[in-house]
Amino acid sequence: MEIYLDNSATTQICKEAADKITYIVNNIYGNPSSLHKKGLEAEHEIESARKALAKALGTLDSELYFTSGGTEANNTAVFGAAYAKKRQGSKIVTTAVEHSSVLESCKELENQGFEVVYLKPDINGHITAAQIENAVDRNTILVTVMAVNNETGAIFPVDKIKKIIERKKSPALFHCDAVQAFAKIPVKPHKIDADLLTVSSHKIHGPKGCGALFVKKGVYIKPLLYGGEQQKKIRPGTEALPLIGGFGEAIKQIQPYSDSIKYITELRDYTVKKLSAIDGITINSPCDALPYIINISAIGIKSETMLHALADKQIYISSGSACSKGKQSHVLQAMGLSRERTDSALRISFSKYNTTQEIDALAQAIKEGLNSLVRAK
Amino acid sequence: MEIYLDNSATTQICKEAADKITYIVNNIYGNPSSLHKKGLEAEHEIESARKALAKALGTLDSELYFTSGGTEANNTAVFGAAYAKKRQGSKIVTTAVEHSSVLESCKELENQGFEVVYLKPDINGHITAAQIENAVDRNTILVTVMAVNNETGAIFPVDKIKKIIERKKSPALFHCDAVQAFAKIPVKPHKIDADLLTVSSHKIHGPKGCGALFVKKGVYIKPLLYGGEQQKKIRPGTEALPLIGGFGEAIKQIQPYSDSIKYITELRDYTVKKLSAIDGITINSPCDALPYIINISAIGIKSETMLHALADKQIYISSGSACSKGKQSHVLQAMGLSRERTDSALRISFSKYNTTQEIDALAQAIKEGLNSLVRAK
Repeated sequence: MEIYLDNSATTQICKEAADKITYIVNNIYGNPSSLHKKGLEAEHEIESARKALAKALGTLDSELYFTSGGTEANNTAVFGAAYAKKRQGSKIVTTAVEHSSVLESCKELENQGFEVVYLKPDINGHITAAQIENAVDRNTILVTVMAVNNETGAIFPVDKIKKIIERKKSPALFHCDAVQAFAKIPVKPHKIDADLLTVSSHKIHGPKGCGALFVKKGVYIKPLLYGGEQQKKIRPGTEALPLIGGFGEAIKQIQPYSDSIKYITELRDYTVKKLSAIDGITINSPCDALPYIINISAIGIKSETMLHALADKQIYISSGSACSKGKQSHVLQAMGLSRERTDSALRISFSKYNTTQEIDALAQAIKEGLNSLVRAK
Repeated sequence: MEIYLDNSATTQICKEAADKITYIVNNIYGNPSSLHKKGLEAEHEIESARKALAKALGTLDSELYFTSGGTEANNTAVFGAAYAKKRQGSKIVTTAVEHSSVLESCKELENQGFEVVYLKPDINGHITAAQIENAVDRNTILVTVMAVNNETGAIFPVDKIKKIIERKKSPALFHCDAVQAFAKIPVKPHKIDADLLTVSSHKIHGPKGCGALFVKKGVYIKPLLYGGEQQKKIRPGTEALPLIGGFGEAIKQIQPYSDSIKYITELRDYTVKKLSAIDGITINSPCDALPYIINISAIGIKSETMLHALADKQIYISSGSACSKGKQSHVLQAMGLSRERTDSALRISFSKYNTTQEIDALAQAIKEGLNSLVRAK
């Protein structure tokens, strides 16, 4: 039996989303922009998904733009805000542990002459509101901070950022990458007072290739794509009808926070207990991390080696962000962890489908791996 | 029974593509970038689709980048080429009748200080090689011309462009938007010697939300999106697995050119004969247009009015590009057609699923529409 514990990389599509996609590809094929009935049928599917997302995020329908995923939404937010605000300043404040789609966009803006401050986390992976407060000034035009770190699960103080921006009399827009937080903890954009917020479909049991950007009513960003009249020209291009439909269904399946977090917290606590009992395992995630993600190190065993040993037993976890394809983790490096710990890092990430029986199998397999692999040296 | 004659706006997904999508959303959920078996399964689907596209286009697998559609591919090509080449010149040559995703990108580049030449077609919709030759010079860094116009079906001399660029000793890259041509006429990028070429899935019976950009080996463009390691960082972001899989299957269903063009040409000739016999109908497409598209005017009746009358009979055509959502056609305007003709323009566009019986019904409905609507005035 396969044990999938890599849910921060991607999740299994839920049945409801898969069924919706199947329905759409077999029945709805109009262009959502066509003015005739076939177009209206397609547009209805898009707007139904948009309404579901608006309900989940507590926003207006008109504040949401579907994209090809988190990467495009983050790029749209970062470049869109920087270019829209460039007359008011040149400084961007972010963290050193953002997803690569934010980090690499910021690096490109640095190449273009913007100044970027990359806040470093402490050894537990925390970023504090005080760090952000110290960095933001009147020249700051964008603060982009993720709600939950994708490698450690560390929760960042995104609910404090807008107040900091206001206190510092900064013209900055506030963008929150909520890809790992969405559907797991409540990060409603209007509640945390974000101007821009990114979510992704494939992290919440929807299909890959779809995401959305929230743009607060009245906030202007420069578009990344130019073309037709779709999505108020903020995100032109024929909409990815099957994926948006599937994303909408996945959103409708989001469980109440109080139910889902309870189960996952129990699972996390069980995992920490099991793994902490194994010699050579250290936990890298902070204690107050989002319980969906645990980052550990199996000291002495290279991440890839352990991943292969586990994969042989059909247990699937990762060494960090899938997007980095096995490269050294910039997150653990920024936390200042020893080379020994970063080289042996493993990320275990849960979904509602995981069970304690699976954790037993994982713990057993890691234990066996450590024994045989360390011994083999 | 519904009659769908708006295939340049979008096409019905073929059964093979729909089945593949259904298979993927129910069975394959790994992240293509994950290093374990679930990731490899997903990556296999992506690479299988890429191989199918490479075979269809006669390119290397490594020259193809999947995007969220034609709009993103066109934006990536236009901005990517202009930014990569900006030290060698500042001029871009294009036509006034490109798709909005090329035109609006060019307009944005104009705002940024690039010089853009928009070549105007003649009254038949033709652009000549001589026009292009006159426009290209040593300061030209990009020539972007579509293979087939999406509103009239006019075929542009894209096979002449690379030679012109070479003759003029221009450093320009040549981008061809082949969205309407792909799978309909042979426009293989290496054959026409394009540096960049755009195709889209949903125009060839694949799903909406997917396309691809060909980037010739050795050609550098600046990426539009920044992020992870996917697609050699030219197009990062988790791949739209279900759509790419569906696109791949749709590509595999492409019929040999000689078979498909024969059927569509017969259908087009039949349509022209039927429609020309109706009082008040003029044909706007040139005689040598791609036979998949016929643009006509039903003089005296506003496009929307006729579209509604036809839609009441479940016959679906359009007034022009779906992406423009009913706005006045920039293509017919650039051709210099009278207001009377642009206001009453209709686009009929075929797929292999259409029949002469459907054309009979269309001709009858247009005739009735003209009679009752003109009489009603």
